[in-house]
Amino acid sequence: MPDCCENNQSIQLQRLSKLWQINMGFFHYLVFLIALLFFATVEVNSHGVPIVRNINELAQDSYGIPGLSHITVAGSVLHGFKEVEVWLETFAPGAATPIHRHSCEEVFVVLKGTGTLYLASNSDPKHPGSPQEFPILSNSTFHIPVNDVHQVWNTNESEDLQVLVIISRPPIKAFIYDDWLMPHTAAKLKFPIFWDEYQTQPVKDEL
Amino acid sequence: MPDCCENNQSIQLQRLSKLWQINMGFFHYLVFLIALLFFATVEVNSHGVPIVRNINELAQDSYGIPGLSHITVAGSVLHGFKEVEVWLETFAPGAATPIHRHSCEEVFVVLKGTGTLYLASNSDPKHPGSPQEFPILSNSTFHIPVNDVHQVWNTNESEDLQVLVIISRPPIKAFIYDDWLMPHTAAKLKFPIFWDEYQTQPVKDEL
Repeated sequence: MPDCCENNQSIQLQRLSKLWQINMGFFHYLVFLIALLFFATVEVNSHGVPIVRNINELAQDSYGIPGLSHITVAGSVLHGFKEVEVWLETFAPGAATPIHRHSCEEVFVVLKGTGTLYLASNSDPKHPGSPQEFPILSNSTFHIPVNDVHQVWNTNESEDLQVLVIISRPPIKAFIYDDWLMPHTAAKLKFPIFWDEYQTQPVKDEL
Repeated sequence: MPDCCENNQSIQLQRLSKLWQINMGFFHYLVFLIALLFFATVEVNSHGVPIVRNINELAQDSYGIPGLSHITVAGSVLHGFKEVEVWLETFAPGAATPIHRHSCEEVFVVLKGTGTLYLASNSDPKHPGSPQEFPILSNSTFHIPVNDVHQVWNTNESEDLQVLVIISRPPIKAFIYDDWLMPHTAAKLKFPIFWDEYQTQPVKDEL
């Protein structure tokens, strides 16, 4: 092969190699841009929790309460919130919370259905006593005065009751009563609460 | 008229009078029961706020922000909550919050529509700088890290964006920016915030 052709080939190879390098540079730049876009969109929170989260993909469970579906939308134990916590709860017909009290503010926003709130606002010093009944209407909001003993019940026989629940000062410490005549002093502290307990199960001893 | 008939008439009148008294007694009892039921259902809160409230009947206004509908579902100034506040906000296509920051936790739950969150998480010490864009999806939740400068925008051209907003430590103190390059020190404190200001308008001087 004459020198001239060898030289030509070498130049062409050099050119191809340079083009390849440019293309690879562009490719790496593209990968970097896509990665940046991905991380920018998915994750920035210092607690490792994505800023935007699909509620359909969050953990959902009854946590042992028949007919309940509980989702911690924004939680203390789960997501690192310190001042508020938000739950999405659905009660099947007949389902209810335990009778309980807690020393935080609690606001409900009814998204679907109807039901009944039982609230012992004028509680006896010894025990809650007979509660007042409040019909929970569709498209309503209701709240629980701090430390009032209460129970939310889906008393509608045919429709689910779906509520957003907002509490302050998480994680919640609830005192649970067997019935409305149980002495306040006998109410059982449930801490961590069902769904938080689930998140903080002690690691099994390997020995 | 013979004595016997007068006596009969008198007895009949006495009987009628007794029946009337019994009926009136029953009537008063009924009124008392209805009143009791009414007050038990409508009002027990020490702050004078009904326990259950119809969201459709709560005050709704744009408070000067074009395309916004704001309802304070559970508020500090309005209802006496001390630790949480809940808003129901609807943004018409193209409507947005101001660019702002605040030193409380904030959680959004998307009830309807889609949009964009602009968030300056890695803010320059001097000014927010170019924000990251987060697509807000239907049925999603998103939150604002404490003190991060942000703006929620209904960038969907055809559908309303409806969100429930939860903040901690109300009433909110917001610092508002004209744009993303405005120095942090120049951001204007808006306290009370638009809807709280509306609630606490000073009484007009009569003189």
